[in-house]
Amino acid sequence: MSDEVVDSNPYSRLMALQRMGIVTNYQAIRQKTVAVVGMGGVGSVAAEMLTRCGVGRLLMYDYDTVELANMNRLFFRPDQAGMTKTAAAAATLTGINPDVALEAFTMNITTLAGFEAFKRSLSDGAGRSRVDLVLSCVDNYEARMTINQVCLELSQAWMESGVSEDAVSGHIQTILPGTTACFACVPPLVVASGIDERTLKREGVCAASLPTTMGIVAGLLVQNSLKYLLEFGSVTRYLGYSSLTDFFPTLDIKPSPGCPSGLEEGLDDLLSQLSALQ
Amino acid sequence: MSDEVVDSNPYSRLMALQRMGIVTNYQAIRQKTVAVVGMGGVGSVAAEMLTRCGVGRLLMYDYDTVELANMNRLFFRPDQAGMTKTAAAAATLTGINPDVALEAFTMNITTLAGFEAFKRSLSDGAGRSRVDLVLSCVDNYEARMTINQVCLELSQAWMESGVSEDAVSGHIQTILPGTTACFACVPPLVVASGIDERTLKREGVCAASLPTTMGIVAGLLVQNSLKYLLEFGSVTRYLGYSSLTDFFPTLDIKPSPGCPSGLEEGLDDLLSQLSALQ
Repeated sequence: MSDEVVDSNPYSRLMALQRMGIVTNYQAIRQKTVAVVGMGGVGSVAAEMLTRCGVGRLLMYDYDTVELANMNRLFFRPDQAGMTKTAAAAATLTGINPDVALEAFTMNITTLAGFEAFKRSLSDGAGRSRVDLVLSCVDNYEARMTINQVCLELSQAWMESGVSEDAVSGHIQTILPGTTACFACVPPLVVASGIDERTLKREGVCAASLPTTMGIVAGLLVQNSLKYLLEFGSVTRYLGYSSLTDFFPTLDIKPSPGCPSGLEEGLDDLLSQLSALQ
Repeated sequence: MSDEVVDSNPYSRLMALQRMGIVTNYQAIRQKTVAVVGMGGVGSVAAEMLTRCGVGRLLMYDYDTVELANMNRLFFRPDQAGMTKTAAAAATLTGINPDVALEAFTMNITTLAGFEAFKRSLSDGAGRSRVDLVLSCVDNYEARMTINQVCLELSQAWMESGVSEDAVSGHIQTILPGTTACFACVPPLVVASGIDERTLKREGVCAASLPTTMGIVAGLLVQNSLKYLLEFGSVTRYLGYSSLTDFFPTLDIKPSPGCPSGLEEGLDDLLSQLSALQ
């Protein structure tokens, strides 16, 4: 990773972060491994940002294929329709930055076998995590709970992201096992209120999505990832984005009583903070 | 623009914005013309977002070529190095969505001839504007003042954007001639304080940039463009982004006394609002 200030150096503008005093050691990014789970509208853009930033190793997980209905978000191209998202992403990202070591996993992490394979792929030979950060870019509760459980078992820091079904809101959340609330402490309201998530999807109805909202959520997610990995600025625990009014609430969520991570408090805390914001 | 809910329809997730009650008439975007001035780290992503959203006509302006030093932002690829940014962008965007009518202008708008050609390109035969919105994604004061002057002369709404030289802050601003402060009312502090912008650039020093900050600013810019063009939510007049702390200040800037747009107040108002935020 050269810091030479010439037009032919793809890293010159990144190494400038170090010269300008923002980051102490930018080159440390070459030693980092990040896993992106879900290569949809948020995950694919997050993977591209990490690739362009020169992350050392990038693990990508998805079981789906590229469809023309995905063309209203950034990243995938019409000529990739029918390819698996992981294969299409690997081809594009290698072309953008061949310095990044890519590992593509075409698998569903929510099955019993998937859970075990997912945990094994994140582990070194001694049962510890081999990655520095896991980014959750999935679109359903089961996959988030799977990531939460694997990260608790590996004591692995991760960041959750999400975009609303009407495409105009989103959030990111940083989860540090043993320090912050885990995802099971603070389930989404739809889960806490006992509604079956599947009843929200009706025949002939599809969720909306926008390249703007998804690009912004991916940007906020990777910006906080860079702050976490390279130790600059402050990593935000929970950041919301409400695009209709450009409102960006932040929260600090305490763990629930009986939380699998062994800490306390939680949903009541979130609800009281949310009501204070309204 | 079909609203059929099938995987082969690239517009199904956009038309869902209408079914979900966010936008009254999404198809109106096919009648809109947007100009993106500056196809760098913000402009190229803004152009891609508008293309994927199905804007009717997109005008793109830049005089520069793609360099490998641009690879730390989204959009351009290493195999495009040496191409003009407008030609590279036109090729990529046509591949993504051939429904969008593209016009590429490889020109410097800040020369005397460039100013006239820029104004002519935005005008219909009767000297009125033929575009619905101009997005400023340039990186210098002269180009912003050129856009400001042309948009004042054509009574053309535009949105300004910018990213700081240390890559960790940015902003967008909506400028409606005759309603809001224009860009000349509220020059950047470096201009208001009388420092020559060129003295800030030193030999061997280059500005930093990040795909995250630029992607977020492009997302906020185009999200507000969509709200303006399709009349939903509220368009933010000024929105800042400070990534080290995830701080997003909003301001409403009044025009300066003696403003070319013929309205009043301005810099003092901005300074008092900024000091109130600190």
